[in-house]
Parts: sequence; structure tokens; C-alpha cells
Amino acid sequence: MQIPEGLKYDRDGLIPAVVQDDTNGEVLMVAYMNKEAVEATLKTGRATFWSRSRQKFWIKGETSGHFQFVRSLSVDCDQDCLLLRVEQVGAACHEGYRTCFFRQISDDGETLATHGTPLTDSY
Amino acid sequence: MQIPEGLKYDRDGLIPAVVQDDTNGEVLMVAYMNKEAVEATLKTGRATFWSRSRQKFWIKGETSGHFQFVRSLSVDCDQDCLLLRVEQVGAACHEGYRTCFFRQISDDGETLATHGTPLTDSY
Repeated sequence: MQIPEGLKYDRDGLIPAVVQDDTNGEVLMVAYMNKEAVEATLKTGRATFWSRSRQKFWIKGETSGHFQFVRSLSVDCDQDCLLLRVEQVGAACHEGYRTCFFRQISDDGETLATHGTPLTDSY
Repeated sequence: MQIPEGLKYDRDGLIPAVVQDDTNGEVLMVAYMNKEAVEATLKTGRATFWSRSRQKFWIKGETSGHFQFVRSLSVDCDQDCLLLRVEQVGAACHEGYRTCFFRQISDDGETLATHGTPLTDSY
């Protein structure tokens, strides 16, 4: 198993990864991987990132149990972004929502919470 | 119409935007917006970005005709990433594919083109 060659990391050594629910196509979150996280994701089949805020290796679900089991991994034309289709356990969002994108912005620029309430079994 | 307050831009003044096909949920591309691009997107209803490679304002489809008409705009929990659901005209990818994520990475780390061939009416 090799890290794909040609992936372009930014000046911090990171590549963004869009995480999409494989069952219904919902976009769940965007997080960042370094080379080690890409390798771990491919090796373990569990989405693994680099936490920019905590500056540490981050196995998604390690503390919450909300793992993301990777069903497929794609790279974009410029090779500077990844797309993971996953089986999401529980909520992807640390605020308890299924998706991190639970706030919709209306035409007047205000934000509206429109994607339901947090799951009861989280946090 | 106001730019949503609270959006977090990176040190280059940019925020990533995931673009998703509103009709079938396919993730089409990821691009970057500055404040001006967010405002233009909200005002015009057409996805507008900041091109990092060309360092210029970029109305998607301006030269190709492959506009993205925005159906909804969401922001994630950390307010540092946007999600656009769009009506995509033609191909999102400059290489002529419907989605920029046309290359799937296999378990051994090799990349495979798996998402069909470029649309014939583009490039």
C-alpha cells in the first residue's frame, strides 16, 4: 500500500478532504490530512485527519465513537483535494448534528439553522 | 444583502467552498472564495470564486459557459468552509469531466479513472 504520488499538499503540508455520506450523498464535513493521515486512512479504512486547531493526528471517532468507514477515496483534477465517501457512525459534527453544514445562509446573508436538531445520542 | 458575519477566512483571506450538484448530490469541485466572491455569489446567484492559480476574481462559467447557479449556500459549524448546492451547466471540471473528482484511489494507493469520459461538448 502506497501513498498516492502526485498529491499536492499546501505550505503547511495539508490537503483538504471533503467527507460525503456514502448512503445518501450528504456532505458531512471538510477536514485536512497530512501525508501520514492519508496513509493511515488508506491502511485502516477509517478517516484520519490532522487537526489544525489541536495540531495533532486525529482519528475521526476516536473519542466520540463516531467513526467514518471509508467506502471510496477520490482525488480532484488538480490533485490538491480529496473526496471520501464514508459510512458515518452517528454524527459527523462535534456539535451533534449529522452534518457540519447545518446552517444555511439565506439570500439576505443571514444564517439559518435548517438541518434539524442534534442527534440525541451524542454529547 | 449582506455578507454573512462570522465567516472565517484563512491567512490569505480565502474560505474553501465545496460545490455539490443539487440534482443528484454529486460533489463537483472545491474552490476558494474571498469576501468579494462570497458577496458576488449571494448577489448574482452564480458561483464566483477567487482563482489562486491566476490570482483573480473568477465567475465560474464566464469563459466556458459552464455556470453554476446556486440553489443553496450553507456554512459549517466552525464557519470556515462553505457548501454550495448548484445547478451545474455542462462540466464542472476544466478537463471536461462532470466532476473534478473523476479519479478514484484504490486500496493500493494507485489512482484509477472511474467516473466516465469527458463530456463531448467541452474543451
